Amino acid sequence: MSDAASAQATRATIGDSEFDRDSAVTRREPGVYDIDLSADWTIFNAVNGGFLLAVAARALSDALPHDDPFSITAHYLTASTPGPAVVRTSVVRTGRTLSTGQASIFQTDADGNEVERIRVLASYGDLDSLPDDVRTTAVPPSFPPLEQCFGPDDSPEPLPGASAITDRLFMKLDPATLGWALGAPSGKGEVRGYFGLADGRDADPFSLLLTVDALPPTAFDLGLTGWVPTVELTAHIRCRPAPGPLRVSITTRNLAGGFLEEDAEVWDTAGRLVAQSRQLARARLA
Amino acid sequence: MSDAASAQATRATIGDSEFDRDSAVTRREPGVYDIDLSADWTIFNAVNGGFLLAVAARALSDALPHDDPFSITAHYLTASTPGPAVVRTSVVRTGRTLSTGQASIFQTDADGNEVERIRVLASYGDLDSLPDDVRTTAVPPSFPPLEQCFGPDDSPEPLPGASAITDRLFMKLDPATLGWALGAPSGKGEVRGYFGLADGRDADPFSLLLTVDALPPTAFDLGLTGWVPTVELTAHIRCRPAPGPLRVSITTRNLAGGFLEEDAEVWDTAGRLVAQSRQLARARLA
Repeated sequence: MSDAASAQATRATIGDSEFDRDSAVTRREPGVYDIDLSADWTIFNAVNGGFLLAVAARALSDALPHDDPFSITAHYLTASTPGPAVVRTSVVRTGRTLSTGQASIFQTDADGNEVERIRVLASYGDLDSLPDDVRTTAVPPSFPPLEQCFGPDDSPEPLPGASAITDRLFMKLDPATLGWALGAPSGKGEVRGYFGLADGRDADPFSLLLTVDALPPTAFDLGLTGWVPTVELTAHIRCRPAPGPLRVSITTRNLAGGFLEEDAEVWDTAGRLVAQSRQLARARLA
Repeated sequence: MSDAASAQATRATIGDSEFDRDSAVTRREPGVYDIDLSADWTIFNAVNGGFLLAVAARALSDALPHDDPFSITAHYLTASTPGPAVVRTSVVRTGRTLSTGQASIFQTDADGNEVERIRVLASYGDLDSLPDDVRTTAVPPSFPPLEQCFGPDDSPEPLPGASAITDRLFMKLDPATLGWALGAPSGKGEVRGYFGLADGRDADPFSLLLTVDALPPTAFDLGLTGWVPTVELTAHIRCRPAPGPLRVSITTRNLAGGFLEEDAEVWDTAGRLVAQSRQLARARLA
């Protein structure tokens, strides 16, 4: 039985899944939260940036009067490692429909000093209160059927960049954007695929924050190799996603001066654009 | 003599222009800056959001060891009005190539309470230290020649949304994206045009922050009218712009649930993508 099939058989639910368990924060005092960052969400030895963003977002969801991140920005300061961390939040402004807050994730170094990992600024609202109308005709990019796409479990060898987090994810990439894995990057700066959590949990606003930073970097499709550290990532969550696998498209238009932007669009099974993100990342030029 | 011709005749320079004078902050103490927000940069009675971002960016440029905003995010909390304001900054992290800081602009209300207008989080670097290479082939959207474009001074009546700031700007819009001004919006969510400062000052990273939020909103091209308040805006400054008028394209893909994103791309006369931005704004549905 494939990983995907077994995931279907033991389908986890929102609130009761690996992702919910591992991204949960414990309130120590008002605005201050503890978490033990699991090694299960690492790429090489660093905790995945989207996962960290989800952790900060869950703390802010508790600290603010609104539950759902509408726009959330993180600046990545130092690499996070598995182990204890503290999330410190503060309320910037509360309003009727939106509230704004700030969060930082800290870890303690060998000398006992708190080191800041990421700084987050976000505005929250209530996705369920929004009208259902869609006024634009944006459509997702063309995706081949899921069964024609490839994931880490289809590869005889681990994909470049495969790491602990790979086992937590359901990811099937459009073969048209996978040439880099065979040494033939397209040069277009595009990666597309179906995405979910390996245990079958459906998407929610917090897992969307993981989703926008989980595909292999577009830099690979541009012929670059190695680490592409995120400087800053902003995600807009536009509606609560419908159940089922998401379609994710990431693109880069401008790799210049040693930096690149990476835009992600996430579409749900109902054909709605549920999240958009953009990050600025450093490129290691070959 | 047209406004544009007179601007050419008395061309201002970077450091000596209306924009430089009005966006300058005065250091009161380390990290704290004063400014008197001029009524000359207002739309209706509110200070323009891109201008405010430039003010915060100038304060951060003084407070941080690096001069140039690489990625800067603002959450807009309350409307700013002409008059005194204070910018409070703090340093989040300093590194060799990048440093990160935070800024808030406050004004004092009638009861003497400080009210926060915008909260900003940004990473700064040195644009002049970046390698010159461009690895991607992104090209600007097609623009008609400048002399076929239209600005506020070509209109027999003020354009909808014309305000004090209009006199500070040089703006010539592609007529293909101006149907809304004649009651016939295209519905595509696109506005394109040439952009500069009316006094002829060339662009720099700070004026680019004004540039990304200065065109008429895409919402007009989608058939909406009225105010489109920005919730959050993030801009990436990718290189120091060459002299001459900028080409600016703004687009919206997703107007849904009462919110829309607006993406801006700014191209310089050397054909380089010098800035990208995205904002999340509220739509007032008709």
